[in-house]
Amino acid sequence: MIIEILATGDEIRTGAAIDSNSAHIAQVLEQAGLEAIRHTCVGDDMDMMVSIIKEIGSRADVAIVTGGLGPTSDDITAEAAAKAKGVERALNRSALGVVENFFKTRKRAMSSSNKKQAMLPIGAESLNNPVGSAPGFLLKIDRCSFFFVPGVPFEMKRMLSDEVLPRIQKFEGGTGELSLVKTLSTFGLTESAIGELLTGLSAQFPEITPGFRSKFPENQVKLYIRGKDDQALHKILEKASQWVLGKLGKSIFSMDGISMQAVVGGLLASKQATLAVAESCTGGLISHLLTNVPGSSGYFLFSGVTYSNEAKEKVLGVSSQVLKQYGAVHQETVKKMAQGVRRVAGANYGLATSGIAGPDGGTDEKPVGTVCIGLATPHEVKGFEFVFPFNTRLMNKNIFAMKALDLLRRELQLKSIENRKVKIEE
Amino acid sequence: MIIEILATGDEIRTGAAIDSNSAHIAQVLEQAGLEAIRHTCVGDDMDMMVSIIKEIGSRADVAIVTGGLGPTSDDITAEAAAKAKGVERALNRSALGVVENFFKTRKRAMSSSNKKQAMLPIGAESLNNPVGSAPGFLLKIDRCSFFFVPGVPFEMKRMLSDEVLPRIQKFEGGTGELSLVKTLSTFGLTESAIGELLTGLSAQFPEITPGFRSKFPENQVKLYIRGKDDQALHKILEKASQWVLGKLGKSIFSMDGISMQAVVGGLLASKQATLAVAESCTGGLISHLLTNVPGSSGYFLFSGVTYSNEAKEKVLGVSSQVLKQYGAVHQETVKKMAQGVRRVAGANYGLATSGIAGPDGGTDEKPVGTVCIGLATPHEVKGFEFVFPFNTRLMNKNIFAMKALDLLRRELQLKSIENRKVKIEE
Repeated sequence: MIIEILATGDEIRTGAAIDSNSAHIAQVLEQAGLEAIRHTCVGDDMDMMVSIIKEIGSRADVAIVTGGLGPTSDDITAEAAAKAKGVERALNRSALGVVENFFKTRKRAMSSSNKKQAMLPIGAESLNNPVGSAPGFLLKIDRCSFFFVPGVPFEMKRMLSDEVLPRIQKFEGGTGELSLVKTLSTFGLTESAIGELLTGLSAQFPEITPGFRSKFPENQVKLYIRGKDDQALHKILEKASQWVLGKLGKSIFSMDGISMQAVVGGLLASKQATLAVAESCTGGLISHLLTNVPGSSGYFLFSGVTYSNEAKEKVLGVSSQVLKQYGAVHQETVKKMAQGVRRVAGANYGLATSGIAGPDGGTDEKPVGTVCIGLATPHEVKGFEFVFPFNTRLMNKNIFAMKALDLLRRELQLKSIENRKVKIEE
Repeated sequence: MIIEILATGDEIRTGAAIDSNSAHIAQVLEQAGLEAIRHTCVGDDMDMMVSIIKEIGSRADVAIVTGGLGPTSDDITAEAAAKAKGVERALNRSALGVVENFFKTRKRAMSSSNKKQAMLPIGAESLNNPVGSAPGFLLKIDRCSFFFVPGVPFEMKRMLSDEVLPRIQKFEGGTGELSLVKTLSTFGLTESAIGELLTGLSAQFPEITPGFRSKFPENQVKLYIRGKDDQALHKILEKASQWVLGKLGKSIFSMDGISMQAVVGGLLASKQATLAVAESCTGGLISHLLTNVPGSSGYFLFSGVTYSNEAKEKVLGVSSQVLKQYGAVHQETVKKMAQGVRRVAGANYGLATSGIAGPDGGTDEKPVGTVCIGLATPHEVKGFEFVFPFNTRLMNKNIFAMKALDLLRRELQLKSIENRKVKIEE
């Protein structure tokens, strides 16, 4: 089955918006063992839309089209679909029900522009949209079944899982082919370093297709495999993962594609340990990342985003003498910050950052990209200094935060291993 | 001139990565008065790559292709380009210089896999990459000039501006046609509410093409105009912007597409006022957003991410009685948090959040999506409560943070207007 994805809209064509919809659709298909072989994006231009729909209609079996179903004047997808098939549009009663229902349940008045959203090509099957006012529709054009869904991401996602995917799976009848993927997340190795360390992977595991993905500041290794025997596929995937782990070692922080903050959170939770953070240059990003993880309130107690030296003194208890002697960006200062925030919050671990994210504030001695990281544990306090080569504020904040979390992860994993050793020796 | 964008790579085709490169390229072209009429994405499949390159070669004048120039085994773009043109690859001396130079300036050893990156199709012109190891290249295939650049975003961006765009502009010779766009950013109105409030825009300003972009949690109105007379275009754009401002009023927080945090930062800086933040449910996101703005250390003093009640008491001085009587998520509690953090940091303004981001922790009385926001000014303290209908933790954190910043923005703008009035009356 040949599947294609089409994103429509000038905001995507002109780059005003990034097309995250097509990625989501491709991922959902992938997880269902289906493959989108091609994505296309065109703008809100009638001739272009009609021509691309015809083109896809002639070569694909299924197409998923996002965008252009709203009430405003630049929403022309339904009209383009009708033209591509050579039919008129008419008020679709089932689609009208979707629109009316949306406004009724929200106790809002329906405008005439919303009624336009129920004007579908003749022959289209309306698709329910439980979370928005735009109904989607299914229309066969040439050899291809087109699923038209709204461009608003959460509406598209809901309709994809409820309306689109089950229908595609019915078309397929099931080839029985499975597609599995395993994502290993690394931090601290460049893509080419990873590539070299993994020379021999394909020779060792010819069934595996490897993929490398740079998702700054992490680099992911993806292992893809296709086949019919679920158990056998899982076995090979597991063996290959262990092989990769043997080559990349501690640089791998997750064997399941989960985020650094979720890994750190899991380690803290499993040890029933708590964490407090003192952030200067990272400006709240470490806290934001940690608290993105559901359940983080179980181990994350407090973060002091101490941008000013006054706050470093007053909230964290860093002495003005230390700040005067070493300056804000120094290993000794972040050690005091880590100890201070650990004490103030009554936490088991304290993590602190201070550095120069840029664009200004760099010196010859401490250029933009310099970060000092302090880590206070129940037993000791450590200070680190790194210089990263990036020159945007946001990249620096991200790599500083990731580096701090990675140091904490290695510390927690080390302790896990030590504890295990102790247990074994007992 | 027909321009197309082609993104290559299984990570994008399968949705493992979102294609932000094509959006960036389209935007840079747009700003230069050029238009990409179509984007395509295909995976690391030789047949597919060769076929799409031939297809684009037959219909476009210029194509910009990203990805697949790295040293690893799934990097097959140069080979696909050679096949599409029907030529062999050979070691390109100029490209080899780019690769060698990269490793020399970084004092790192060059591996044989990196040498592969200099194997270009015969007839290709090597393009310099000052920030990475993969050289790009320009190759004419059929009627189309293809620019091949790496997929790593910061390498692609640098090469686009330094190597690709100047060459495309030379091809064009200059039609003298300009493309201008104005971005008005709104918060608090739905896309369809905006659409209805702006009915009549096209009748009033027929030269303007409007666009609506949902960039959660903000909604942008874009006004596009094309023509030759720079001054006249700016005049119409300015008039239309004022017309839109008249219709949407205070919901517009920026007339230049800048972020809410930059608007708030600008207001604070212009008043020489300082800010401290106390975050519970937003978990550091408000601080992260504020400190993304260069120069924020001039007005942002401190944020206490007080996830635990202990931290609310100890750091912000919220009494245990208040926490017991009202609970953590309450207008009275956030008022105390805002006053507390303002006092602790010695700031002019204090902003505080407490709420339920989910997925757990909701009750009938305070469902997931509930947020209380406290705002302490030099004169008073205000408490607010809102319930948002989103059900993901990240969406809630984002809309909570945006709402808090928007309340502060309206307060600061109100004060500006009041001050202006006083001045006028004097």
